[in-house]
Amino acid sequence: MRIKITVSYDGTEYCGWQVQPNGVTVQQMLEDAVKKVTGESVRVTGSGRTDAGVHALGQVAHFDTNSSVPPEKFYKALNAHLPNDIKVLKSERADDNFHACNAAKRKTYAYSLYVSDTVMPLKERYSVMIDRAPDIALMRSAANCFLGEHDFKAFCASGSGAKTTVRTIYNIDIEERGCDLKVSVTGNGFLYNMVRRLVGTLLMAGYGEITERDISETLLGDASSAIGKTLSAKGLCLINVEYF
Amino acid sequence: MRIKITVSYDGTEYCGWQVQPNGVTVQQMLEDAVKKVTGESVRVTGSGRTDAGVHALGQVAHFDTNSSVPPEKFYKALNAHLPNDIKVLKSERADDNFHACNAAKRKTYAYSLYVSDTVMPLKERYSVMIDRAPDIALMRSAANCFLGEHDFKAFCASGSGAKTTVRTIYNIDIEERGCDLKVSVTGNGFLYNMVRRLVGTLLMAGYGEITERDISETLLGDASSAIGKTLSAKGLCLINVEYF
Repeated sequence: MRIKITVSYDGTEYCGWQVQPNGVTVQQMLEDAVKKVTGESVRVTGSGRTDAGVHALGQVAHFDTNSSVPPEKFYKALNAHLPNDIKVLKSERADDNFHACNAAKRKTYAYSLYVSDTVMPLKERYSVMIDRAPDIALMRSAANCFLGEHDFKAFCASGSGAKTTVRTIYNIDIEERGCDLKVSVTGNGFLYNMVRRLVGTLLMAGYGEITERDISETLLGDASSAIGKTLSAKGLCLINVEYF
Repeated sequence: MRIKITVSYDGTEYCGWQVQPNGVTVQQMLEDAVKKVTGESVRVTGSGRTDAGVHALGQVAHFDTNSSVPPEKFYKALNAHLPNDIKVLKSERADDNFHACNAAKRKTYAYSLYVSDTVMPLKERYSVMIDRAPDIALMRSAANCFLGEHDFKAFCASGSGAKTTVRTIYNIDIEERGCDLKVSVTGNGFLYNMVRRLVGTLLMAGYGEITERDISETLLGDASSAIGKTLSAKGLCLINVEYF
């Protein structure tokens, strides 16, 4: 039986999603929890990796089990073996051919920033300080350049190993609230470091350091013309993954 | 010269505000930072103690110094010697007779809760889970019982050492937003554990476990009739301290 789970985590203490030899990962913690509940050694397959330090509100994953635990109760059993910074919010039975990664149609990430000349202790864990306010209108105009299907090879870190670097961005929303700034990006998938670099690029546009033309040319050009700095992982959160 | 500082901290890793023999405190960290900047061993006097694990957005404190660092630049010098979970947001010169504790006229605390049947990793650090929604109208009615001047001896933990247990509550605001619930309390001062127990009492009222009459009688009665459980420290944040 295949179980689909929705998982939230505070990524601060983890070396990202994917199991690796050195360092504790979210995937490892979930696989250990399944083992404790069912006695089975399973692979928990996520909708995609998240990098070290990245958070998730609604990561989705699946695994197979012969356990008699009712699918919709599975999350409680798993949570009994998980720390407070990783919790399964929901579990349900999925079709045997459901695949959390391959079947993912849309993902939304949010990147959180705050404008301040001083580090704000109560904001630091989940957002990144910027010392001056960017022009939001400039950022929104620049965001339009990314909408639609583009080759994002100039906006990903090398080594992502993706078959294609073409992705479609459906929506970019920039929300201002007091000194807080949240950039939400929805697309059909994201390359390694892509959201962090995309938001870094929007920020440069908001400061007038690059233009919409620079972005459009980069999207048409090659990787050597990469622009935009990659922002820190801690400001990034995987909000949800959609399947239809 | 007396310097007034406004300090924010994430209390998770600290044994509260007040210097103590075992464990790192916020006051100690600030005094160490002053020493590193000025070479002087000073007492940094806060508007009041916050308990272990309690956070602050705008704690106020003062200290005396002979340093030539300009008062309004002092916060930057101190921050160079403080970790990211304690930062001084502002520094200014104060009258020599200004006293952060004695002159404090009003303080506002906020207590954060969230309604969920599962621990939410991204909310856990600064708020407390409750597994069912209280009746907000009942909570608001109960809150009215606390407004004004009362003897709060039944709502403080023993050992606070306060001269009087009479305090005035000016305002209690209960804000609902999705599954988040924030109770803000403004008063002329608070006893040891008072806000945490007051909010615990409002929660019981919201669940219909106690009535407004129970609260009124307790406010008129003696400490043996204490009601309301003391909620966890991590949901509490000192928002600001006012002087006029």
